Amino acid sequence: MDIRRLFGANLRRLRDRAGLSQEAVAARMGVDRAHVSLMERGQQNVTLTTLWTVCEALGVHPVELFDETVGVDGP
Amino acid sequence: MDIRRLFGANLRRLRDRAGLSQEAVAARMGVDRAHVSLMERGQQNVTLTTLWTVCEALGVHPVELFDETVGVDGP
Repeated sequence: MDIRRLFGANLRRLRDRAGLSQEAVAARMGVDRAHVSLMERGQQNVTLTTLWTVCEALGVHPVELFDETVGVDGP
Repeated sequence: MDIRRLFGANLRRLRDRAGLSQEAVAARMGVDRAHVSLMERGQQNVTLTTLWTVCEALGVHPVELFDETVGVDGP
């Protein structure tokens, strides 16, 4: 399992559930939209403090970002 | 909540549950014992890939490292 892709797939799932755009999440986090896109595609090796910033932006708990039922597409 | 302290408290709890010393976990992770000690004290802003290395060393899932019932001592 690639933990970056698991995190990214859950970020996208939770963002969709919250009805937020990548721009809106980026604005809440104080980062560029491209950073959110890269995170969702599992291409960012984020730190715990960035993980917490995502949690605050989406109003979720860290465990929700590692939920395996999300289904990580492809290898 | 400080996510680094939540992670550290769970790392210590799960290491104890596995009956492993900091040296043993450090050896499994390929890092120095001091690094494990700093992580347990919430003083390391680890990345997702380091988080995954901890999971493999302890045989746990990432969600277990963010369990709030562990009780993070003090402010």
